[in-house]
Amino acid sequence: MSPDLDRLAALAVRFGANVQPGQVVSISCEPGKEEVVRAIAAEAYRAGAKFVDVSWFDPHLKRARVLHSDEESLGYVPPWIGQRMLDLGELRAARIGLTGPSAPGLLSDLDPVRIGKDPLPFVPEAVKVVNDQTTNWTAIPCPTLPWAQLVFPDLPADEAFAALWEQLWHVLRLDEEDPVAFWKERFGTLTSVAERLTALQLDRLHFRGPGTDLTVGLLPSSKWIAAQMTTVGGIDHAPNLPSEEIFTAPDPERTSGTATMTRPLVLGGSSITGLKVRFENGRAVEVISEEHGAVLEEYLKRDEGAARLGEVALVDGQGRIGPLGTVFYDTLLDENAASHVAFGSAYAMTAGPGDQEKINVSQIHIDVMLGSPEIDVTGVRADGTEVEILTAGVWQI
Amino acid sequence: MSPDLDRLAALAVRFGANVQPGQVVSISCEPGKEEVVRAIAAEAYRAGAKFVDVSWFDPHLKRARVLHSDEESLGYVPPWIGQRMLDLGELRAARIGLTGPSAPGLLSDLDPVRIGKDPLPFVPEAVKVVNDQTTNWTAIPCPTLPWAQLVFPDLPADEAFAALWEQLWHVLRLDEEDPVAFWKERFGTLTSVAERLTALQLDRLHFRGPGTDLTVGLLPSSKWIAAQMTTVGGIDHAPNLPSEEIFTAPDPERTSGTATMTRPLVLGGSSITGLKVRFENGRAVEVISEEHGAVLEEYLKRDEGAARLGEVALVDGQGRIGPLGTVFYDTLLDENAASHVAFGSAYAMTAGPGDQEKINVSQIHIDVMLGSPEIDVTGVRADGTEVEILTAGVWQI
Repeated sequence: MSPDLDRLAALAVRFGANVQPGQVVSISCEPGKEEVVRAIAAEAYRAGAKFVDVSWFDPHLKRARVLHSDEESLGYVPPWIGQRMLDLGELRAARIGLTGPSAPGLLSDLDPVRIGKDPLPFVPEAVKVVNDQTTNWTAIPCPTLPWAQLVFPDLPADEAFAALWEQLWHVLRLDEEDPVAFWKERFGTLTSVAERLTALQLDRLHFRGPGTDLTVGLLPSSKWIAAQMTTVGGIDHAPNLPSEEIFTAPDPERTSGTATMTRPLVLGGSSITGLKVRFENGRAVEVISEEHGAVLEEYLKRDEGAARLGEVALVDGQGRIGPLGTVFYDTLLDENAASHVAFGSAYAMTAGPGDQEKINVSQIHIDVMLGSPEIDVTGVRADGTEVEILTAGVWQI
Repeated sequence: MSPDLDRLAALAVRFGANVQPGQVVSISCEPGKEEVVRAIAAEAYRAGAKFVDVSWFDPHLKRARVLHSDEESLGYVPPWIGQRMLDLGELRAARIGLTGPSAPGLLSDLDPVRIGKDPLPFVPEAVKVVNDQTTNWTAIPCPTLPWAQLVFPDLPADEAFAALWEQLWHVLRLDEEDPVAFWKERFGTLTSVAERLTALQLDRLHFRGPGTDLTVGLLPSSKWIAAQMTTVGGIDHAPNLPSEEIFTAPDPERTSGTATMTRPLVLGGSSITGLKVRFENGRAVEVISEEHGAVLEEYLKRDEGAARLGEVALVDGQGRIGPLGTVFYDTLLDENAASHVAFGSAYAMTAGPGDQEKINVSQIHIDVMLGSPEIDVTGVRADGTEVEILTAGVWQI
């Protein structure tokens, strides 16, 4: 399979980030994605971009750092990395992120405490830029050979690579004659569900199923939205492609109970499996896993908000990712297979002005998937009455 | 051939840049050099680096920009690129540049005027950082397959790649048991020639041979040095590996005559061949070439100093590059095969305090090679007496 990279580039540039003439465009990615980066850059220049700047993160360099650096210097990040992100906001730039690991498992033999002390590739200034809504941005998956071999370990390398491209093509709707028209309709449906859910004015959500009994408190002004945003300058964009979720900001002090994660979590180069988290008064107080849970525990110590939730998201069974049954080991894809919550920072646009002081604040944002067709979601109003929201993957509202 | 990348990395980190514990280290390079970058980063962290940051320049993105961008935006560079360079100086960082093209000829079908309007990969703030002597730095070659095929067009790809590695290994003295000891001796010899040449207090140099009759005026305080420098903080480093030259700052108003270049000049992705330049009163007033001379002409219009000389350098026949007879299409290597001059900025440390206002200032620095064993170099004192400097590639002083 030789995919038409210009088709992927056009979706990312013209619809996802919606690059405007005269904009600076940032592309962030890992090595091994050069061909896709070049196709996107060329499409951005054809769309009138003023400059395309690529930020590369190489996990091999993180490995060398974690192996050899003094512990006290592991948290250091030079000033231009955060400044570049702030400048992108000031310049009202467009941003395109290419997801998918280039070297999965590369850090899995290293000390998780040391891995967590080096914050990169996470750049905390990105939280401000997202919340300021100064940049039109999208994240879209891009295959690498090592990633394909992780997802399809039983296939020969070339077949695995082709299979990954084929599934991504499908979930991105690039196999549709008009992918943009398809996405506009899907986002229309999700936006209308989100509006009905917001109108219910729920006090909390209740997730219940095998290994999970979790209550997530909401704020009085929690606003549900689909992954469609508009910048302060009025540029519509789709921050995630694919996206099947609706999401909001929970009350960071009112999550309690236990959630068993239904997908592995790839974090700092490690794949965390069999993850189970117990919450008390909004904080994660216990992390259990089959493998590498200590990496998550280290991230949750980053700051006061790191062990609290900044996002709760619902995903129905109509998306294309869940039915594939594929574990992609990539948050963008796996989070859109299933309902999820995120540790760390909230999206400011998902709460009203009166609750901006209450939403969670943190340098991290880590999505963990707790949904599946076996997990039912019920809404509870302040007076204790219940509303069925998602049952067996189907919207009940 | 499977070269020992750790050996190359050790030369670059421990001797070339001379990385100190606690330093931030910048590596700059083009795609296709990932394995060498990783070896250098690991060695830098083993040497105690606080952080290793890689700056990638992809000529494919420059091609897309030159093809599609509005002409008025081609000169734009986002603020973080220059700021990063200034920050490296402020932080007293180490810098390692990997030379050698990753995609030679990629821009050769494009409009040279448009190519020249996009200044990258040149970052003018680097001139300030070099002259401030705040960073310990080195430039060292790193093979790519397309580069090898350019240098050895008659060999199969894998043999060309092996041949390029072998020649680089040789000129870097990595085939010596103790390359660092070798370099220390070679730099010792060149430094002693440089000191004798400075002591001669010449008024001007005269280059004479086939197609060349060029007089380069010197300043009263022009100081000859080998490519060994010391930062303001006292860190010795070798800015070029390999290096066979001694060089100084000429008088930017007193070069006249004609020089025929003895090596192709690779500039902005184009290879300029058959280049001949005529000077009047220090300015290049005529550029003739077989191919792509217009690219150089565009650079020479960049600013007032761009068409004047900032460097004159002498190379003897004892180096290892000249005798190979290989045209590397890489300035670092080709300039060290032969005596050369450079358009644009001068190195402040090659003139005394009294002449700092007189040395050439420009945003560009482009070396062009005019030397060969057939070009003799004579020094002329203010009273008109002559001193033979280089005859048939042998020092006469």
